[in-house]
Amino acid sequence: MVVILEKNATPEQIENVVKHLEGFGFQVHKSVGAEKTIIGAIGVKPNFDTRTISILDGVEDVYRVTTPFKLASRSFHEKNTVIKIKDVEIGGNQVMLMAGPCSVENEDQIFRLAEIVAKSGAKILRGGAFKPRTSPYSFQGLGEEGLKLMRAAADKYNLLVITEVMQIAHIELIERYTDIFQVGARNMQNFSLIKELGTTNKPVMLKRGIAATIEEWLMSAEYILANGNKNVFLCERGIRTFESYTRNTFDLSAIPVVHKKSHLPVIADPSHATGLRDQVPPMARAAVAAGADGLMIEIHDDPEKALSDGPQALLPDTFLKLVDELKLIAQAIGRTI
Amino acid sequence: MVVILEKNATPEQIENVVKHLEGFGFQVHKSVGAEKTIIGAIGVKPNFDTRTISILDGVEDVYRVTTPFKLASRSFHEKNTVIKIKDVEIGGNQVMLMAGPCSVENEDQIFRLAEIVAKSGAKILRGGAFKPRTSPYSFQGLGEEGLKLMRAAADKYNLLVITEVMQIAHIELIERYTDIFQVGARNMQNFSLIKELGTTNKPVMLKRGIAATIEEWLMSAEYILANGNKNVFLCERGIRTFESYTRNTFDLSAIPVVHKKSHLPVIADPSHATGLRDQVPPMARAAVAAGADGLMIEIHDDPEKALSDGPQALLPDTFLKLVDELKLIAQAIGRTI
Amino acid sequence: MVVILEKNATPEQIENVVKHLEGFGFQVHKSVGAEKTIIGAIGVKPNFDTRTISILDGVEDVYRVTTPFKLASRSFHEKNTVIKIKDVEIGGNQVMLMAGPCSVENEDQIFRLAEIVAKSGAKILRGGAFKPRTSPYSFQGLGEEGLKLMRAAADKYNLLVITEVMQIAHIELIERYTDIFQVGARNMQNFSLIKELGTTNKPVMLKRGIAATIEEWLMSAEYILANGNKNVFLCERGIRTFESYTRNTFDLSAIPVVHKKSHLPVIADPSHATGLRDQVPPMARAAVAAGADGLMIEIHDDPEKALSDGPQALLPDTFLKLVDELKLIAQAIGRTI
Amino acid sequence: MVVILEKNATPEQIENVVKHLEGFGFQVHKSVGAEKTIIGAIGVKPNFDTRTISILDGVEDVYRVTTPFKLASRSFHEKNTVIKIKDVEIGGNQVMLMAGPCSVENEDQIFRLAEIVAKSGAKILRGGAFKPRTSPYSFQGLGEEGLKLMRAAADKYNLLVITEVMQIAHIELIERYTDIFQVGARNMQNFSLIKELGTTNKPVMLKRGIAATIEEWLMSAEYILANGNKNVFLCERGIRTFESYTRNTFDLSAIPVVHKKSHLPVIADPSHATGLRDQVPPMARAAVAAGADGLMIEIHDDPEKALSDGPQALLPDTFLKLVDELKLIAQAIGRTI
Repeated sequence: MVVILEKNATPEQIENVVKHLEGFGFQVHKSVGAEKTIIGAIGVKPNFDTRTISILDGVEDVYRVTTPFKLASRSFHEKNTVIKIKDVEIGGNQVMLMAGPCSVENEDQIFRLAEIVAKSGAKILRGGAFKPRTSPYSFQGLGEEGLKLMRAAADKYNLLVITEVMQIAHIELIERYTDIFQVGARNMQNFSLIKELGTTNKPVMLKRGIAATIEEWLMSAEYILANGNKNVFLCERGIRTFESYTRNTFDLSAIPVVHKKSHLPVIADPSHATGLRDQVPPMARAAVAAGADGLMIEIHDDPEKALSDGPQALLPDTFLKLVDELKLIAQAIGRTI
Repeated sequence: MVVILEKNATPEQIENVVKHLEGFGFQVHKSVGAEKTIIGAIGVKPNFDTRTISILDGVEDVYRVTTPFKLASRSFHEKNTVIKIKDVEIGGNQVMLMAGPCSVENEDQIFRLAEIVAKSGAKILRGGAFKPRTSPYSFQGLGEEGLKLMRAAADKYNLLVITEVMQIAHIELIERYTDIFQVGARNMQNFSLIKELGTTNKPVMLKRGIAATIEEWLMSAEYILANGNKNVFLCERGIRTFESYTRNTFDLSAIPVVHKKSHLPVIADPSHATGLRDQVPPMARAAVAAGADGLMIEIHDDPEKALSDGPQALLPDTFLKLVDELKLIAQAIGRTI
Repeated sequence: MVVILEKNATPEQIENVVKHLEGFGFQVHKSVGAEKTIIGAIGVKPNFDTRTISILDGVEDVYRVTTPFKLASRSFHEKNTVIKIKDVEIGGNQVMLMAGPCSVENEDQIFRLAEIVAKSGAKILRGGAFKPRTSPYSFQGLGEEGLKLMRAAADKYNLLVITEVMQIAHIELIERYTDIFQVGARNMQNFSLIKELGTTNKPVMLKRGIAATIEEWLMSAEYILANGNKNVFLCERGIRTFESYTRNTFDLSAIPVVHKKSHLPVIADPSHATGLRDQVPPMARAAVAAGADGLMIEIHDDPEKALSDGPQALLPDTFLKLVDELKLIAQAIGRTI
Repeated sequence: MVVILEKNATPEQIENVVKHLEGFGFQVHKSVGAEKTIIGAIGVKPNFDTRTISILDGVEDVYRVTTPFKLASRSFHEKNTVIKIKDVEIGGNQVMLMAGPCSVENEDQIFRLAEIVAKSGAKILRGGAFKPRTSPYSFQGLGEEGLKLMRAAADKYNLLVITEVMQIAHIELIERYTDIFQVGARNMQNFSLIKELGTTNKPVMLKRGIAATIEEWLMSAEYILANGNKNVFLCERGIRTFESYTRNTFDLSAIPVVHKKSHLPVIADPSHATGLRDQVPPMARAAVAAGADGLMIEIHDDPEKALSDGPQALLPDTFLKLVDELKLIAQAIGRTI
């Protein structure tokens, strides 16, 4: 922690700050300049609330000097984490594709779409069985029936399953059917839920909250890691800004930033980021070019009848064509798809 | 719903849009202008995803014309909702004060602070027993022990209790000790939790999510109302913006907007909105002047030793002085405190 | 400046950082901890681009420790600046009211409205003669004719005039008619313009840009002060956020923040902040309660026919009633109106 | 325009709205549903302030149905605009590269960097001679001397010149040296300046303001087009959001949105969008993958000594390597560089 004293701070005020810091167990180093005094406070207290010092008289500013996360940080674990699930790797050189409908709607639908997913070369089938919906009157998902259908469809086409878990009480049930737990943007700071997922053995994909800083996102990953589950990867899916043409603003620079700060894989979801079908292909291409370790894309073969988010789903043909373009882009930066 | 066709939309495209709308059960009214055709689609489908139409060929824009919430809307229930708990009313002419520490820390602390709360004339004691913390390494609250202490302190000083519930599994436990459930900003869209709270009998205070629009906030209130609990009130506590000097940006204009759109009471929390003690009094005054039905304020008599959020807690003397000012401001707009 | 080295920084990297800092003329103080090394760099270089150091190998973070503005800072000038224009003071104990139409439209209109402004007790008449409009097809103001009419109306009712200046070429012309130059939100960082206004003798009201941090706003004030004009005051008028119900989000906490960081007066404009007439009275009351040194309010007696921004203008009766409430609120915090 | 009446609107209120609309010259179409009445108001008034109607009694909401810009819209001009300057085309199939230093610093520097620009295959040299700086104490550019040096360097290496114009008084001077006028983000709504640029013959690159919606950006382009200059192209350079790790949030989805709404070319500036050298290559690649018609990239061969923005400048070698990657990505989407 670094404490900047006000220009006019008195010696008594400075002494008082030092006393407080030492009281909290910090080692104190003082630098006295012509204009300002700076105090360096060294000690391992990652969660110290710096405002405790900033409200003391004579203090102008306080800066934390350690990241508040450890297990998730690149300095703790220098090499990229690669998550292995059966023969699939997330975070390796291959860019991993996940695709499927927003919601599992019925047996036909999920089998038809699983076939397309497999055809594209993607290895992971996505689909919602429990849906977080803004309105209490919207379709809330098929529940366990949806999980069963998705598992069967995935097994038939040799795919892995990823699906969202919304509450602690569902973890055990969902674990029986899925290969990867998905934590949605709205639950990124549902600390009770993510703590519990930290005690499971299955990989967790943690979506970024719509107003979460990259640091808060990594702090939520830390919750899972600190509870014992090391198989965490992140998913950028757009943040909320003043621009309203797209549903969210796709923050693609989060990808290289996460790669710098953390060893965890990070993928991108252009479907939720944009919310509009015709924006998905350019943004999917951009995400791969920016270095994403994977993509999650919503597809549907009858989007007008989809029970949720039809308008952002790609049609099968568009999706297959997009995957071809993505392969060329991956190649341009030395990766495969 | 209103559908605006593109200037160059063909008759076939327009016909196709009409067919789709009728297929979804809407009554269709077409207005043909020199430049544009507009289609009014009438029908009660509050959750219809307008993007389903916006992706059709020839469509330029689509607007929803009904609010997506009903039970929470002023047009459904014209008179202000007044929530009565024992002899306390929230949403009436009196501006209701809630105060107390961020976290219950020990017996002494909560009894000392409850005494100050009672002395100020406030009727409701706040305090956290289960704390949502960004870091897994921070103090997470005393749990049930905290609930017991707060209940005892409140009873001694004839106060009501409000405390946060973070997960479904805690509802029953917390219900035994509290008079009001608090849903925190991070859980505003934890739909599983709020749905469950809709089945209880106790009033629920729903904090606004840091990136929630006013409409989304009212949609979350709708979840609680639709599940049977009519005693919901709202709490503005700051939204996330680019300005970083204050922890959040206190969106005080949300207060008159909620009063216009909804019959539910709305209070304000200047402590979390600003995150800095010296900002709390001016913002508390501003909230009352803007028409808030109540205030939630954090206080502490030894904030440097507080286990959480000490820097934003008011000292008892500052708090008592502030309440005197607030009384004058309430009076200036024809209310009491 | 404070430089935080990475945990794994090598002695060579640290030495290189020190060399660079000394090369830029900083005095260097090193604090070596078990986990981290911190370097304090003391020296008066308020505009040093800290990124120059942050890109060196081994550097984790760099913090500036001096505010980038000087003349505008509270530490440079401890007492509040009070701007005197004839018998009017801005920044004193009295909260100063400015009111008038968005645009000067014709002689009748401005004289009628000036009469109402005078009747309310406000001392300053606002009105636009040169209007910054988002659309090239909107009414752009009456130009010099508008200035003449406003001056005449103000003189008749013993009011001061404030009006916006949009370009350097208009400064001389406007100076002949106005008592205060207004710089609009869109021009807050029109550095050419504000530099030039720094060389005039008339007070300048600097509106906050819709996406300007408080620091950037004070930096723009610094431009005017540094060019010799000490009569600068600020005007909060809402910032752009994700919330779209109101035109902007009125950042009232900027008022106490500016008062803490700077000696310059700060007023508030609830008309532009909210953009909706029925939001203006509660937000005007809130601004006074938060400590604003003045208010700028748009009024119109025939808002449906107003050539610009009619929908946010208060009707004369509402305005006069509001001023009565504001007087009580000012009194509650020990001020007058 | 579409007007939605409140559920409980009286026939008199509806009649009053109709009367107003007709008074403003609109053709009115009424659709009466069980729940709501909707009024379609047809007529060519692109700048009508819809709030004029929204404040009438009984009105719930009002939507504009025409875009407020015309000349800039895709519906006005279906084919892509391609701007030709000598043998260079902006907006064609080739992705156009512009590169150079943030500021022209001296003869040696600009000639050395122009050589690198030419070597990369880029056709346009960028460089600032008049610099908009947040601080009045920062380097403000070499002025005319800078223009001369840049012109000479560009001529030697057969490059075009693009440079920023900050005020009307400089237009004539800068026009003598540059091939393209650049309007910076802070001046996007400096309407006096852009109106004047609309009367020149040289192409104008209009950067997006940091808080400008895509619609406002196109409205500013409309100002230039409406004043007669048809050679306008746009530059996305990041918007301001809550995320502070990068200087701005690069809104790459603006690229396909602009291509949909408008016929004007749109390029991207990853240097200003991210503000950090190591973010520039991934974001440059992403911009090309997203469909940008060009890139503007800052380079420097001694960034530690750069007089402005050194930390975001690419080193020559990194730049040349990046261009090679960009060529492959352009090829993947059927374009060239």
